[in-house]
Amino acid sequence: MAKITPSPGNSISVVIKYNQNDGTLSKIIETIESNNGSLGPIDIIESERVTIIRDFAINLVKDTDCASMVAALKAIDNVEIIDVIDRTFDMHIGGKIDVVSKEHLYDYDQLSMAYTPGVARVCKAIETDPQKAFDYTIRQNTVAVITDGTAVLGLGDIGATAGLPVMEGKCVLFKEFADVNAFPICVGTKDFDELLATCKNIIGTFGGVNLEDISAPRCFDLERELQKVSDIPIFHDDQHGTATVCGAGFINALKVTGKDPSKMRLVVSGAGASAMACTRALLDLGIGDAILCDRKGALYDGRPDLTPDGNKAKYWASKMFNKDNMQGSLKDVLKGADMFLGLSGPNLLTGEDIRTMNEGCIIFAMSNPTPEVPLEDCYGYASVVASGRSDYPNQVNNVLCFPGLFKGLMEAGAKMVTREMQRAAAQAIADCIENPTADNIIPGAYTPGIADAVAAAVKKVALDESIPKTPIFFDFDKF
Amino acid sequence: MAKITPSPGNSISVVIKYNQNDGTLSKIIETIESNNGSLGPIDIIESERVTIIRDFAINLVKDTDCASMVAALKAIDNVEIIDVIDRTFDMHIGGKIDVVSKEHLYDYDQLSMAYTPGVARVCKAIETDPQKAFDYTIRQNTVAVITDGTAVLGLGDIGATAGLPVMEGKCVLFKEFADVNAFPICVGTKDFDELLATCKNIIGTFGGVNLEDISAPRCFDLERELQKVSDIPIFHDDQHGTATVCGAGFINALKVTGKDPSKMRLVVSGAGASAMACTRALLDLGIGDAILCDRKGALYDGRPDLTPDGNKAKYWASKMFNKDNMQGSLKDVLKGADMFLGLSGPNLLTGEDIRTMNEGCIIFAMSNPTPEVPLEDCYGYASVVASGRSDYPNQVNNVLCFPGLFKGLMEAGAKMVTREMQRAAAQAIADCIENPTADNIIPGAYTPGIADAVAAAVKKVALDESIPKTPIFFDFDKF
Repeated sequence: MAKITPSPGNSISVVIKYNQNDGTLSKIIETIESNNGSLGPIDIIESERVTIIRDFAINLVKDTDCASMVAALKAIDNVEIIDVIDRTFDMHIGGKIDVVSKEHLYDYDQLSMAYTPGVARVCKAIETDPQKAFDYTIRQNTVAVITDGTAVLGLGDIGATAGLPVMEGKCVLFKEFADVNAFPICVGTKDFDELLATCKNIIGTFGGVNLEDISAPRCFDLERELQKVSDIPIFHDDQHGTATVCGAGFINALKVTGKDPSKMRLVVSGAGASAMACTRALLDLGIGDAILCDRKGALYDGRPDLTPDGNKAKYWASKMFNKDNMQGSLKDVLKGADMFLGLSGPNLLTGEDIRTMNEGCIIFAMSNPTPEVPLEDCYGYASVVASGRSDYPNQVNNVLCFPGLFKGLMEAGAKMVTREMQRAAAQAIADCIENPTADNIIPGAYTPGIADAVAAAVKKVALDESIPKTPIFFDFDKF
Repeated sequence: MAKITPSPGNSISVVIKYNQNDGTLSKIIETIESNNGSLGPIDIIESERVTIIRDFAINLVKDTDCASMVAALKAIDNVEIIDVIDRTFDMHIGGKIDVVSKEHLYDYDQLSMAYTPGVARVCKAIETDPQKAFDYTIRQNTVAVITDGTAVLGLGDIGATAGLPVMEGKCVLFKEFADVNAFPICVGTKDFDELLATCKNIIGTFGGVNLEDISAPRCFDLERELQKVSDIPIFHDDQHGTATVCGAGFINALKVTGKDPSKMRLVVSGAGASAMACTRALLDLGIGDAILCDRKGALYDGRPDLTPDGNKAKYWASKMFNKDNMQGSLKDVLKGADMFLGLSGPNLLTGEDIRTMNEGCIIFAMSNPTPEVPLEDCYGYASVVASGRSDYPNQVNNVLCFPGLFKGLMEAGAKMVTREMQRAAAQAIADCIENPTADNIIPGAYTPGIADAVAAAVKKVALDESIPKTPIFFDFDKF
């Protein structure tokens, strides 16, 4: 099983005063290490002849380890704890984003242009031609990051405002990775019609909508119905962002293994929104067949509990995927498969299950932090292993897709996201690695040029009128 | 009548190439002046031995004067027009605000704190205690600037998105004058219930709401009903912002004139939202009585067209104001009045009408750009004259109020705006002028320290539990 390492997400700053040059520093560091802490920067705050004050950044395994760590440090002779700061909370004080003026207004002349009376002429121009809003307002380059708080990270339905730190974080990523303006909107209703109406009513400020952390099946319906009434692209990142990066990894995994995708059978653990989207993306990239499994096993045409009046997504999947109509449990259908894609929960499979697949199979086990199968148990049998973890090779990280995708969409003035754009984005991400290897099929988030490459690829497809425009949203009434 | 001067709101940049040192420059400038242009900066773009290229910033009276100005310039010998740019539209390209990250994310450690996995701990803390959102998210310092586009400037109902340039401008002012983050939300519905529901559903992202350019009577109802379901302050700037600055001017006008407010009679032209709010604010500041006039004349108790089932605001005003129940036209009731407040339309009164008021009266004629009465005709009889114009003394400018007001509200964690806070804000603005004179009762927008003074005054009142908390919204069911 992948071990849980200390994370900067559970990081504290402990400010300690101690005597210099008497071996206390090594005792402090020993204590930190022996209490499962991992050390970040060790800054000097103040140094005097006898004593010194240092700030130790310590990553912990979990935040509840803080008290015992501090107690252990306090127990060292000649050590005084000056302060303990939770670094994550500290960086969240007052939120993570600012809204700033593009130009400072130094005098009344500038006021008269940016505000009344000059601004009235811009308003009138937009009233006459609403399309001009994409030239003269923030609609040109601003994305709404919208959630209802029903499926925030792995935390579930925590409510709209409790999801705000994640949405702000997403806005930070938009700006930092692609210079796209993004603003969080937390919608405080669980009534679907009200959610849809609220989104519809506010999109006139934005150039695109990134739906985030919205539970299924409402995420499907919201994306589709909102797109139908919108003149800007609507994109549910948990579905299609994940799917795009999976697709990029798949493209490079094929390069590494030399496999013919049309002869491959994919087995998916999970039948939620991201599983649906990832499966369709891999089929769009040429994989031969895909079988989705929920807790009851494979989704197949005729499974008694899958009806048009029940879970529409699963019913649709049972008709559209699994062309040999295989039945049985996840472990049953996994036998002889060529690729496993996990979008479900921790530790559902063992290394032995993986060894029932075809040798040299491809494993994408994305449950986070604990994958569907221990990654260590896949190496040696599988040819390529990817996951959601940043401390293993091949992390499927949505930040590779959404900043550049929206940049390209808005530069092209696209009104919708299409599956053709998704394929192009996946290819662009994959191409950022010149010579992929088993341990390097997906670029790291900080690889230079990714957002621009994705933006250019998406923009090209958006502007090419010879390329079909197949909506990225799911319409479960269409077979 | 106040003349219409060239304005930077109608400003063009004309890039001209001409021969140096042969008198062409003076011909160019003569031409600009004789065509009603006023010159701003004249920059050099490129200078060669014989020719020079300069950029002339020219303020025009109206934007339609651009073509004739350019034609006149073109007609000068040895002059080549290289480019003509509308400076206002130019500064609006791509919108006026950016959303930026407070901290740049340089590495995976920072990513792990600002986003997953670290951010999950902040989300959980807010789920447990929603009040923590005001510590760890942008709710601490972010205002929503919300419009439905039904009453944008003097343009009327131009639609939500066409109002976006004004809302962006407002956000710029929030940032530039008080370092408050503000983000525009244009709500694309005219259905009141949907408008209210949309506002209610999105306020979980914000620390305050500035309602803007929303037509009456929905602006009254929206402010009141939204405040009732909100845990953050709701403020309709067109009403109470204007009223606060009017109040500040009134305070200093009393200082200048030595009048006893309790003995003063105010006549108001206009019975819309800002007229209602300004009237109440001046009554709160001690003015003896106020008579509102609409097109039909004075609002009085028993006026046949004013019924509880009709215009609720006017019915309420007819009961609450005009304690002597005066009847008649605007001009009738103006006789013997001590103050005139115009919040209606251009040129309704003449200097002779003003001379029927008590000598030394106070005139606030706010219709913009053309006041209710020619300002020049008031000087000499009135003791103090204020207006909405930036090119005359004593401009009533809302930017004196809203940035500091919201700063103070959010610093105090106030859940509502109160009339007591409004009075304190008006006093703080007035106090920014140490020795007011007839031509200096209202400070200029760029007077240092105004926003901080307003913020401190509002915060003090908000935190003082001995001060009553009277909601600023109107409740027309309460008499």
